[in-house]
Amino acid sequence: MTVVSLPVLDWVAALGDVPDVEFVHWDLSAAPVREDIEVVVGPYMASPKRLEWLAELPQLRAVQLVTAGYEHALRYLPDGVVLANGAGIHDTSTAELALGLTLAAQRGLPDFARAQERGEWLRAAGLPSLADRNVLVLGYGSVGRAIVRRLNAFETNVTAVASRRRPGDEFVDEVHGIEDLPDLLPSAEIVILIVPLTDATEGLVDADFLAALPDGALVVNVARGKVVDTDALVAALQAGKVRAALDVTDPEPLPNGHPLWSCPGLLISPHVGGASTAFEPRAVDFLRRELTRYARGERLSHIVA
Amino acid sequence: MTVVSLPVLDWVAALGDVPDVEFVHWDLSAAPVREDIEVVVGPYMASPKRLEWLAELPQLRAVQLVTAGYEHALRYLPDGVVLANGAGIHDTSTAELALGLTLAAQRGLPDFARAQERGEWLRAAGLPSLADRNVLVLGYGSVGRAIVRRLNAFETNVTAVASRRRPGDEFVDEVHGIEDLPDLLPSAEIVILIVPLTDATEGLVDADFLAALPDGALVVNVARGKVVDTDALVAALQAGKVRAALDVTDPEPLPNGHPLWSCPGLLISPHVGGASTAFEPRAVDFLRRELTRYARGERLSHIVA
Repeated sequence: MTVVSLPVLDWVAALGDVPDVEFVHWDLSAAPVREDIEVVVGPYMASPKRLEWLAELPQLRAVQLVTAGYEHALRYLPDGVVLANGAGIHDTSTAELALGLTLAAQRGLPDFARAQERGEWLRAAGLPSLADRNVLVLGYGSVGRAIVRRLNAFETNVTAVASRRRPGDEFVDEVHGIEDLPDLLPSAEIVILIVPLTDATEGLVDADFLAALPDGALVVNVARGKVVDTDALVAALQAGKVRAALDVTDPEPLPNGHPLWSCPGLLISPHVGGASTAFEPRAVDFLRRELTRYARGERLSHIVA
Repeated sequence: MTVVSLPVLDWVAALGDVPDVEFVHWDLSAAPVREDIEVVVGPYMASPKRLEWLAELPQLRAVQLVTAGYEHALRYLPDGVVLANGAGIHDTSTAELALGLTLAAQRGLPDFARAQERGEWLRAAGLPSLADRNVLVLGYGSVGRAIVRRLNAFETNVTAVASRRRPGDEFVDEVHGIEDLPDLLPSAEIVILIVPLTDATEGLVDADFLAALPDGALVVNVARGKVVDTDALVAALQAGKVRAALDVTDPEPLPNGHPLWSCPGLLISPHVGGASTAFEPRAVDFLRRELTRYARGERLSHIVA
C-alpha cells in the first residue's frame, strides 16, 4: 500500500476507490500524521511555508500539487523527491471567468449593477457585442485552449498567440508566435491574457502594446498581474484609449486608494479565476487518475522538478 | 423596380446590391416620402403609432419587421397587406447576453463591481461555476437554440423545454414538453427563460414554480417581464430561496423605488438583449435575403399575418 496524504478531508472518502493506496488526511498545518507518507498532495490556498513539514517525512517520494504554479514549492522540496503540478485542473473555472469578464465588460453589466444600487434603469443601446469581434488570445496552453473553445461558440474571430508559432488544432487554424504581435495588435478589439509569468512576459502589456491596440479595445487579464505594466494601463484607461477587465493585478491584492480602483472602463474581480465550485470535482478526478498511475508504478504525468 | 422603404439611412447604401429593388429612406416619423412604396421595413425601437402612416400608401403590399415581436403592428396593418417578422435577427445578441448574465451572476461579478466602487478587494472562494450545473432552457425557438449552442461549450448539463415535446437536434438529445416541468424543476440549478409571451406563458414563473427549484437556483429572464410573477419573485429573492438575473421586468422600465431594485441576489440589465452591435449586420443580411426573395416574386420567409 502506498500512503498518500490529502489536504481536504472529503477527498479521502471521494478517492477511496483507488487500488493499492491508503489515504490519510493531512493539510500540513501541523506535524505529519504518519511517518510513512510516500506522496503528499499539497494544500490549496495556504501558505507555502507549510511545505517545511516535507523535510520530516523519511519515506517521501513525490509531492503532487493541485495548482498550475509550482515555483513556491521548489525551495521546500527535499532531495530526491519529485514535484508534479496540477496542470489542467483550473482550466474550466478560469476559462469560464475569462468569458464572464469579457461578456460583462462588452455588454455593460458593471454599469448596470451600479445603476441598480441607485434604482436607475439606464437607457443603453448599441453596446459592443462579443459576436463579430476580433479576439486575440495571448497564451495558448490548456487554459488558453479552454477559452478559445468557449469563444468559438460566440461568432467571434479568434487569433491564438503562443511563445512559438505552431500548427493549429481543432479550435484554431494556426497558432501565431509572439513575434507576430506587432502585426496582430492593431486589429485586436479584445485581448485575453493567459500567458505564464516569465521573464519574457513580465510587463509584456506596456505602453507600446496598449498604444498599438484599436481605440476602445478591451484587455482581459486572467494570467498574472505582472504581465501588465500597471502604470501604463492606468494611463491608457484614464485617457479612454482602452477598457479592461482584470482578475489579477499588480500589486495584489490591490490596496485601497490605488489609482486602478477609480479608473473608468474597468472591471476588477479579486483573483477568483480558479476559485469556483468547478475546482473540486476536477481536482478529485485528476488525483484519482494520477495516483492510480503512481500506485501502478508509472510516472506522475506532470512532473516539473 | 420594387420600391422598399428602410428606416435607417445607412441601410440604403448597405443594401444597394439587391437586384430590382429601389430603396428609399423613411423612418415613419413623418408622412411617406414616396407614394409608390410597396414594402415598408418597420422602424426599430420606435413607437408603434408611427405605423399609422401605412394607411397612406396605396401600393403597399408587405411590411417587414426587424423585431421578433409583431403583436404591436397588427392593428395598423391595412387589409390585404402581409406582415413578416424579423425571426432570427436578435438570436446572437440575446443569447450572448443570456450567457453574460448567467456567468456574471454565478461568478459574483455584480458584487465585485460594487466593491470596486468602494476600493475593496473582496475575499471570495467557492462561488458556483456555470460548469457542472443543470441548466434548464425554457423556450427552444431560435434564440433558445443559440443559447444552448453557447452553453454546450461550458461543460453544463442542458435540458431544453418547449411548448411541445419533440426530438432532439445537433445541440440537445431531446426537447421536453412543458408538461415535464414538475419533474424537471427540482434539479434545475439554473433556469433560462426565453419563451414567447402568450396566454400559456404569462405568469408561468409563479410562487409554485419558484418553490419547486432547488435552494439557491438562478433564474435568468431574457424573454418578457410578464413571464415572471414579479411579486412571487420578490418574495423568493427576499427569502434567499433563489437568485435572479433579469434583462426584462414587469413593469418595464422598472420605476425608481420598486421593491425589485433592492432585492438581494439579483442582477438587472435594462432590456438590452437585442441592443448590441450584433444587431445591425444581422438585420442587413436578413433584409438582403428577404428582399431578394421578394423581388424575385417569392414569399417572404417569416409571414406572421
